[in-house]
Amino acid sequence: MTTVAAYAAPAAKAPLERTTIERRAVREFDVLIDIKFAGICHSDIHQAREGWGEAIFPMVPGHEIAGVVSEVGPGVTKFTVGDRVGVGCLVDSCRACDNCAAGLEQYCTGGGVGTYNAVGKDGEPTYGGYSQKIVVDENYVVRIPDTLALDEAAPLLCAGITTYSPLRHWNAGPGKKVAIVGLGGLGHMGVKIAHALGAEVTVLSQTLRKKEDGLKLGADHYHATGDERTFKDLKGTFDLILSTVSAPLNLDAYLSLLKTDGAFVNVGAPEEPVALNLFSVIGGRKTLAGSGIGGIRETQEMLDFCAAHGIGAEIELIGAQEINDAYERVLASDVRYRFVIDAATI
Amino acid sequence: MTTVAAYAAPAAKAPLERTTIERRAVREFDVLIDIKFAGICHSDIHQAREGWGEAIFPMVPGHEIAGVVSEVGPGVTKFTVGDRVGVGCLVDSCRACDNCAAGLEQYCTGGGVGTYNAVGKDGEPTYGGYSQKIVVDENYVVRIPDTLALDEAAPLLCAGITTYSPLRHWNAGPGKKVAIVGLGGLGHMGVKIAHALGAEVTVLSQTLRKKEDGLKLGADHYHATGDERTFKDLKGTFDLILSTVSAPLNLDAYLSLLKTDGAFVNVGAPEEPVALNLFSVIGGRKTLAGSGIGGIRETQEMLDFCAAHGIGAEIELIGAQEINDAYERVLASDVRYRFVIDAATI
Repeated sequence: MTTVAAYAAPAAKAPLERTTIERRAVREFDVLIDIKFAGICHSDIHQAREGWGEAIFPMVPGHEIAGVVSEVGPGVTKFTVGDRVGVGCLVDSCRACDNCAAGLEQYCTGGGVGTYNAVGKDGEPTYGGYSQKIVVDENYVVRIPDTLALDEAAPLLCAGITTYSPLRHWNAGPGKKVAIVGLGGLGHMGVKIAHALGAEVTVLSQTLRKKEDGLKLGADHYHATGDERTFKDLKGTFDLILSTVSAPLNLDAYLSLLKTDGAFVNVGAPEEPVALNLFSVIGGRKTLAGSGIGGIRETQEMLDFCAAHGIGAEIELIGAQEINDAYERVLASDVRYRFVIDAATI
Repeated sequence: MTTVAAYAAPAAKAPLERTTIERRAVREFDVLIDIKFAGICHSDIHQAREGWGEAIFPMVPGHEIAGVVSEVGPGVTKFTVGDRVGVGCLVDSCRACDNCAAGLEQYCTGGGVGTYNAVGKDGEPTYGGYSQKIVVDENYVVRIPDTLALDEAAPLLCAGITTYSPLRHWNAGPGKKVAIVGLGGLGHMGVKIAHALGAEVTVLSQTLRKKEDGLKLGADHYHATGDERTFKDLKGTFDLILSTVSAPLNLDAYLSLLKTDGAFVNVGAPEEPVALNLFSVIGGRKTLAGSGIGGIRETQEMLDFCAAHGIGAEIELIGAQEINDAYERVLASDVRYRFVIDAATI
């Protein structure tokens, strides 16, 4: 056991504060990671404030982790001390179900273990990346290519893979018209990745406030959804729309922007149910779908893809004492485009 | 012009009554069809009663038409007098848009023309199959194979293709678990076709009232959705669920019955919006989709498939004077499984 400093929410909706937690001794297939950077994901806030239901406290959030291996267990074959590595939303899964066998650990039906706010197979609660060190089974650790800066790589572990996975699954690429709804932490990664995949990319955002940024990130077009003409002008335009927002949308209006056989894929989602007219999918054989993060193998593939295309997240690096302020700014959409905690300040 | 007898609704919600209509003279690419049988589709009732919005009256419903060619225009190459033919939901489309070019005339964006309750390119209203004869451009006519009885083939032109098209599109076949929701006109065709495609077929119906029929039609399993255990027992079971009902369903509950990457496809739809929790599609990367009839080429493929597998509709043959009673029985789900009008009685 190692005692390490961390930032934790002691109870639901309480501010995060500095504390210490115990990390388990390195086991046969474990790696010990010195955390260098941890991204702040909107879902950290949802969970720390119990917006998604009952949670486990104290909670150390953080599932966008970048660091360096400082110790390996005797059975570890994939990593060695000094390796630059990342950990995302999962630190374990059943390894036996059809989804695990297919590399879709994120949909594990036998009991996936979240990086925090979960209970490991050893019965102990898991604690996330807002801490100095973490111990993770090597099968749930990925390698960060040398050309990616660790701070800009951290958000790829959630925001990157959450957009990469559906963009790949629904074949974003040359000749395809792809819209990204929302230009926040997820959305800005969606734009970069869809552009690098070769698609023609449109940002659909409430206003034109971030238009200049969007075009710089790789978007070909940028439209305000607050302007009624957008829905008229873009009717039947897109092969794929990726919605990264958690505000409730008018699904029927967005579905009307798809071509025949187009897909509207949600990676963000409101907490409340939304209304849908089923004729919106019957006309044009349209798909309304969802996607959650990605599997371990695909996360590695995403990191390699980002390295090959020089893609990191756009970040605001903060000290750990700024976490609570950062949460408020995330809720106010006042971040361009991801807060990343410098773990040296924890 | 030819004057022919027909059954028409003179106004919204009025009973249908015998009348006469004019059919255009056969033009260069037209075929004149002596109608032998016409199926009664639930959507005939929706439209005759303006459940789907404003309609054109007088209305001669009927888009499940089976008959024999009695005259052909000079440019017709596909059919000759005496051919057994069918007409479905479309009698024309723009022939220029991407969808028409792809054989997806049912999603024509340039102006498809419905078999009735529509206006043709000549500016004249279209009248459907509850009549003695119809004149249709040969490109919107399909051939009914000799081994299919015309009365049992008529419902294939809508109920058959509406289920065949999504079952094919979403790859129903050997090794796939497919559920059909509702065992009515569409549902019973869905069971027969999914079974013939080699899928393992489950009927999900409100009660077990039609269980014996369902198993005879080709279902391997039959469950009552009125029984709460059904949703518990069948969680994560299906690759594809085809919903043929127009009653509002609990979409979240049905989506929970899908495997990872499974699809819930609506061919029936309620008139009102339904509620959906988007987390129901995010977990397991699920698809909620829709599908409407099928293209002309695929309709021919479906008829050939049904002939090869000895599949016709299960019908109750009625005289034209029974149409209004039949409408009431359809609304009461009191038909096994499709009413077909004997056009000789019109």
